[in-house]
Amino acid sequence: MEQRRTVYMDHAATTPVRQEVVEAMLPYFSERFGNPSSLYALAREAKEAVEEARGRVAAAIGGRPEEVFFTSGGTESDNWAVKGVAAALRKRGDHIITSAIEHHAVLHPCEALEKQGYRVTYLPVDEFGRVDPGAVEDAVTDRTILVSVMAANNEIGTVQPVAEIGRIAHDHGVLFHTDAVQAIGAYPVDVDGMGADLLALSAHKFGGPKGTGALYIRRGTRVATFMDGGAQEQGRRAGTENVPGIVGLGRAIELAVGEMPRSSARIAAMRDRMIRGILDAIPDTRLNGHPTERLPNNVNVAFRYVEGESILLLLDSLGIAASTGSACTSASLEPSHVLTACGLPPEHAHGSLRLTLGPGNTGDDAEYVLTVLPGVIERLRQMSPLGGR
Amino acid sequence: MEQRRTVYMDHAATTPVRQEVVEAMLPYFSERFGNPSSLYALAREAKEAVEEARGRVAAAIGGRPEEVFFTSGGTESDNWAVKGVAAALRKRGDHIITSAIEHHAVLHPCEALEKQGYRVTYLPVDEFGRVDPGAVEDAVTDRTILVSVMAANNEIGTVQPVAEIGRIAHDHGVLFHTDAVQAIGAYPVDVDGMGADLLALSAHKFGGPKGTGALYIRRGTRVATFMDGGAQEQGRRAGTENVPGIVGLGRAIELAVGEMPRSSARIAAMRDRMIRGILDAIPDTRLNGHPTERLPNNVNVAFRYVEGESILLLLDSLGIAASTGSACTSASLEPSHVLTACGLPPEHAHGSLRLTLGPGNTGDDAEYVLTVLPGVIERLRQMSPLGGR
Repeated sequence: MEQRRTVYMDHAATTPVRQEVVEAMLPYFSERFGNPSSLYALAREAKEAVEEARGRVAAAIGGRPEEVFFTSGGTESDNWAVKGVAAALRKRGDHIITSAIEHHAVLHPCEALEKQGYRVTYLPVDEFGRVDPGAVEDAVTDRTILVSVMAANNEIGTVQPVAEIGRIAHDHGVLFHTDAVQAIGAYPVDVDGMGADLLALSAHKFGGPKGTGALYIRRGTRVATFMDGGAQEQGRRAGTENVPGIVGLGRAIELAVGEMPRSSARIAAMRDRMIRGILDAIPDTRLNGHPTERLPNNVNVAFRYVEGESILLLLDSLGIAASTGSACTSASLEPSHVLTACGLPPEHAHGSLRLTLGPGNTGDDAEYVLTVLPGVIERLRQMSPLGGR
Repeated sequence: MEQRRTVYMDHAATTPVRQEVVEAMLPYFSERFGNPSSLYALAREAKEAVEEARGRVAAAIGGRPEEVFFTSGGTESDNWAVKGVAAALRKRGDHIITSAIEHHAVLHPCEALEKQGYRVTYLPVDEFGRVDPGAVEDAVTDRTILVSVMAANNEIGTVQPVAEIGRIAHDHGVLFHTDAVQAIGAYPVDVDGMGADLLALSAHKFGGPKGTGALYIRRGTRVATFMDGGAQEQGRRAGTENVPGIVGLGRAIELAVGEMPRSSARIAAMRDRMIRGILDAIPDTRLNGHPTERLPNNVNVAFRYVEGESILLLLDSLGIAASTGSACTSASLEPSHVLTACGLPPEHAHGSLRLTLGPGNTGDDAEYVLTVLPGVIERLRQMSPLGGR
């Protein structure tokens, strides 16, 4: 009998805040607690900490500090980018190009804009979840104001050819936004290399705290404000700065990006071992997402004849934390829009399992999952009303 | 020679996070770090903590838990309330009534709506900063969809007759929003007593962390989403919940509101002693705001012939943290829109000082300020180009 372990393999949903990050944040709760906008020593300390964090974020993504704006997370950053460009450029155009597999933080703002009269093209993806850059080019019209394609998908881990897409957007004088929430810390991110005019990131995806993110806005890019009020963030994002959160974001991105070359090789090897192990041991199983162009930490497999939620319940009882797809849509009963867009038939899409690795995972964790998973799937298939053996 | 002390008297700008609050938050960074939307034990712990906090907020303001929605702070809550009602009720009407002395988190969204074709009435206030409920009644038309008047002003501390304003709004079938960011923990707040359909609050104003707030939305109230994406918060506010921040907000509001009856009496006595002391000791000085209908922690005085910023610099050198008005506008050179709306002539408005007290302030703090302030004002008046003796 396998001994019970606790294995967290849902790092795409959220990550534990690293100890160094918590320690960096702590002084800013009760000691250096000043409002950065105020005019005394306590406030200057807070202001300096915010600016230091801004510099760290800029360094991590290849931007300038004055192009980094702190937000409450990836969702706000995406909302701001999409709605902000749409509002600022309404006179110039009303057409947005995005992909069918974006996070809902991009798709739902696009749908909201459609209700206001904007037109949105949702580009299809191939069976591996890749957007064809040629399709971006074909979709551009003289009314196009924004292309928004994510750097890497949160469910299946597929990495998009953003550099090429960014170049095409710029060739046509169109702004390019990329949701890099899943990519930061797992994949190289460089705003110039990607041709990104806007880029969204979220601290809690790479060892930082929940409730903090950033939007990169290239100098000179016209984006309407989203959060109106005080004059914080160069007058472009109102609201008292979340100083401890921002400090945590800065420390976390520095650590995650600094360690990436080494950590991602180790994690990618673990990912490959898990994918091979699952596909070899369990029949009627397929890999979701791209075989090579995928995040180093993403394992996503589809099992026929089983329900994803049942897999999660049994895995949970075995101490394994995993996901069927996105945490943000786990309350929904519909099959994942990402898997559906990849052409996965519903009976497969319903039985998908996402395991996303993090720096804390060990080879033993991977072995444990590989040891118990075949039995879990076998048991579910035996009791399944969906058919099977 | 007075010994140098450190006196923080800018609690309206922000407050230190209370030790009990930090301790309540800490486990949710790195141990119980799950994403509340996920489907395993670690996530359920986080979800339960969020729901417990929601219950505490509801209890503190007299609402139901399902009417409390967590946000990134007061600015988001105000933006959501104003823009959300405007978008949801556009077919029914296009007119909003607010006051000239609202926080910019309400005023700037109103101005943004005016650019979209909405009409906004900015009600004047009397010399003490009070809105006349009769003026609200007179301003209502059959196109009015929202009345937004703050519970208490952040600069001058004037408390508004919100219960009466809320009743008038409801008599006319109009929604009522109140920004209670400054009132919570300092003044009794009850959504039913106030007739509030929407109410904004911010954790860092009452011993909680920055980057967390809430919007109360009365059951059945139509408000468009502001942050679109995942299905969090009953599908009405997307984005991974800031679990540690929300836990901190819940603990802080419980502590602040629970201790209010005793703490606010002590703080009000200190306030009255400081106001009397300043007006008695320093000539050409007047109280800003209402003599009695004001927050227990707010001292705001105007000194002729001096510049507020110079006062702050000298006070800072003496270890005293204070403000001229709102921290959110401290980068601006314009006189406060609140003081201007109260009819204070510019030469007075420029020389205003706000001292806002908190539970950590002692009688010695008050004495220290009363001891050094007359010398500070005297020195500035002697070197002032604005005139004086």
